[in-house]
Amino acid sequence: MSSKYADDSLALHTDLYQINMAESYWADGIHERKAVFELFFRNLPFGNGYALFAGLERVLDYLRGFHFSESDLAYLKDDLGYEDDFTSYLKELRFTGTVYSMAEGELVFANEPIIRVESTLIEAQLIETALLNIVNYQTLIATKASRIKQVVKDEIVMEFGSRRAHEMDAAIWGARATFIGGVEATSNVRAGKRFDIPVAGTHAHSMIQAYKSEYEAFHSYAKRHKDCVFLVDTYNTVKIGIPTAIQVAKELGDKINFIGVRLDSGDISFLSKEARRMLDEAGFLDAKVFVSNDLDEYTILNLKAQGARVDVWGIGTKLITAYDQPALGAVYKIVSIENDAGEMEDTIKISSTTEKVTTPGRKKLYRIIDRENGKAEGDYITMYDENPASEKRIKMFHPVHTFISKFVTNFEAKDLHVKVVEQGVIIYNNPTLQQMRDYAKDNLELLWDEYKRSLNPEEYPVDLSQKCWDNKMRNIQEVQEMVEDFING
Amino acid sequence: MSSKYADDSLALHTDLYQINMAESYWADGIHERKAVFELFFRNLPFGNGYALFAGLERVLDYLRGFHFSESDLAYLKDDLGYEDDFTSYLKELRFTGTVYSMAEGELVFANEPIIRVESTLIEAQLIETALLNIVNYQTLIATKASRIKQVVKDEIVMEFGSRRAHEMDAAIWGARATFIGGVEATSNVRAGKRFDIPVAGTHAHSMIQAYKSEYEAFHSYAKRHKDCVFLVDTYNTVKIGIPTAIQVAKELGDKINFIGVRLDSGDISFLSKEARRMLDEAGFLDAKVFVSNDLDEYTILNLKAQGARVDVWGIGTKLITAYDQPALGAVYKIVSIENDAGEMEDTIKISSTTEKVTTPGRKKLYRIIDRENGKAEGDYITMYDENPASEKRIKMFHPVHTFISKFVTNFEAKDLHVKVVEQGVIIYNNPTLQQMRDYAKDNLELLWDEYKRSLNPEEYPVDLSQKCWDNKMRNIQEVQEMVEDFING
Repeated sequence: MSSKYADDSLALHTDLYQINMAESYWADGIHERKAVFELFFRNLPFGNGYALFAGLERVLDYLRGFHFSESDLAYLKDDLGYEDDFTSYLKELRFTGTVYSMAEGELVFANEPIIRVESTLIEAQLIETALLNIVNYQTLIATKASRIKQVVKDEIVMEFGSRRAHEMDAAIWGARATFIGGVEATSNVRAGKRFDIPVAGTHAHSMIQAYKSEYEAFHSYAKRHKDCVFLVDTYNTVKIGIPTAIQVAKELGDKINFIGVRLDSGDISFLSKEARRMLDEAGFLDAKVFVSNDLDEYTILNLKAQGARVDVWGIGTKLITAYDQPALGAVYKIVSIENDAGEMEDTIKISSTTEKVTTPGRKKLYRIIDRENGKAEGDYITMYDENPASEKRIKMFHPVHTFISKFVTNFEAKDLHVKVVEQGVIIYNNPTLQQMRDYAKDNLELLWDEYKRSLNPEEYPVDLSQKCWDNKMRNIQEVQEMVEDFING
Repeated sequence: MSSKYADDSLALHTDLYQINMAESYWADGIHERKAVFELFFRNLPFGNGYALFAGLERVLDYLRGFHFSESDLAYLKDDLGYEDDFTSYLKELRFTGTVYSMAEGELVFANEPIIRVESTLIEAQLIETALLNIVNYQTLIATKASRIKQVVKDEIVMEFGSRRAHEMDAAIWGARATFIGGVEATSNVRAGKRFDIPVAGTHAHSMIQAYKSEYEAFHSYAKRHKDCVFLVDTYNTVKIGIPTAIQVAKELGDKINFIGVRLDSGDISFLSKEARRMLDEAGFLDAKVFVSNDLDEYTILNLKAQGARVDVWGIGTKLITAYDQPALGAVYKIVSIENDAGEMEDTIKISSTTEKVTTPGRKKLYRIIDRENGKAEGDYITMYDENPASEKRIKMFHPVHTFISKFVTNFEAKDLHVKVVEQGVIIYNNPTLQQMRDYAKDNLELLWDEYKRSLNPEEYPVDLSQKCWDNKMRNIQEVQEMVEDFING
């Protein structure tokens, strides 16, 4: 909707507490202390064995444009009561920090730093909400798409979910994410235009109804559209829909490319086989069967097990909303902060919810790839000054049952972080969407099949280096001592 | 993200098949035939007993601005291959139809026409996807919010979900919808600015970590913020967090408004009671306990059953994503179309999925309110030319077990549709958001409690008038005869 403010910016696309904290930092003069924040999630979605990172291009665009507009500042002052001195400061604020990030299409696992922000405390704090909003959604949807493609395998998947997406941004950014995840096309024309994604679609039931009959509607459609997929379930799929599609295809012969028929209701297993049989018998061996109707990877797996004859899967609601788990819980946590003496000091958050305990310190992330078989053997989180590439062999632990471990030698340690912003300047050239998609596909080749199963995959090893682990334990101990000191007065 | 096209419009925010159909209609010269489409959903979400409509203001703004921009047309022509003659036609196209709609905050049930569009066939078709995208999301979230409020009752609910929303639009339009549904405030500052919703929030764990101690951080926060809610779970809630909050509140006395403490992890039932006890013992009887951490109506009901002492519920992920059912399945179906003779003819879509069979014809929707008790006894869907207000008594059927019925006399038949657009001109003045919220609240007063229960509510009666039912049966029969004729050649 056209906003009542012509100069709306995204700087206010944040939680109020970020601005409150920013004000306190500024008032105390600690706002320009150096801070390091890391963005990560604690659990893989859908019980999947991996996630696929997406959203960086949008993050970079947000950082590039970060500023408070006149009407933003007026709102903060006049409506929310922030004082002049602080809003005057905000007026000049831009993002001047340095950012490291995975590339879009990278495989990512639980507790891995996806993005690391190194900037002033105030800047790092103010950008949190928008970064999470962007990365959580696109990563969730790219992962869902990739997961669906693992089940679909060689057939085509089209994204049809705009009408059920969570408002307009979700429709288009979701379409983008599904493309990175391996989906072939979207129905959303705006997404197609904006991101250069192939768009797909033919006609709806309303067209049959507008012409009163499938025969008329198919002929009419074919007059202006050479590539024809006819929707055959408006009245009765087997008795009238498919026969009419075949009849019209025969009548028009070479005047059209009869691509196939689409089924949008009824039992897809039965109807797809029936459609295949009827098309084959009519000599249309290359005509394809398109299906849609509340599909997801679970239903597709079942339909395939029953021998459904489907060439193109149209997936809407359950893909664009990540229906069975519609949120990725990525968080953004401070791991290091400059102290009074100007030195960087690591910091930790303790929680009685144990998985919420953070891993302190500025960290790096490596993928350990076996040079012999070309497969990823695990990921390795280290302190910033460590380099596993210089080591001869690495011990990788099973992520839960740590008594199971293996040594990896002759490995490549691939640094998964790229410096994308340097002191406020975007230095990263975004690949094309097609390149991100190819990168995701190549990355999946690195994974053993056991991590790619849609149900109960094996858990991929993500290890902390000894130094990183020791640092975490030391930080936990310091907090425990602080609590003890407090209790003992 | 700043688009590469400065003139991006929302006309392309549609499924490709809409444009393909539009082209066929236009090429055949039937594009300006009068058509009637209705927007409705087939099932209430969350097993709830009602839904709350939201999204009209955004729909009207979309219709007002409907046009294809230069870059839209260039994309259709150069990238998708539509021909000049058609894109030249689209260039001049605006929405010129008439629209009837429920007001935002109206109660709505399954299969009720929420919006009725009466326009040319081509216009009605092209706006489908955007209308559904808007209405599905806001209605879903307003309903989720209202449902949560039914469980929460008198305490405050704040919406904290931006970081998990499905991209940016969902964060702000979702915040708007939750406010209509009864939520008191949002954390999203941009939503607050844009929609004039109260915004709320204090500080995060990162602030404690930045100051190294809760004592320092609370003091710092209080220096610039008179209203103080202290987050107490960064290190140890009971041993250090709450005691420090109390200590700081005592030290600062009247210099601050000590609003209370916030718990964001651990067992909310135990910790909230402990917090209450400690605050009371310290003399802070009015201090409130704020909680957050993956809450929804199910958890809240359980926490309340265990006697949790909570004053303010902060709800994020599960509200803004409608986590347990993240899509409302509203559809938009043609119900009547002008024939060759220039007369309106009703139309139906048959499906072997029986709930997908549409109800043909231009219809009205009335809420039957008993004048004696002031309660809604059911809703009544009629053909456009019927007026139940002129009838002395109405027979209302149980929606599933139709042998159970009741007569209602002395009733008011409230027409739930408002004419909001007349021949392309928006004639509706949107109420304020506060008025929509009040309207929703008043509407809920009309409902008996049995429809407002969060688990297994009674099913609210929604009846078709006899005339409407007969018309549907006649249309079904006509299609069956057509199919028979086809089979028999």
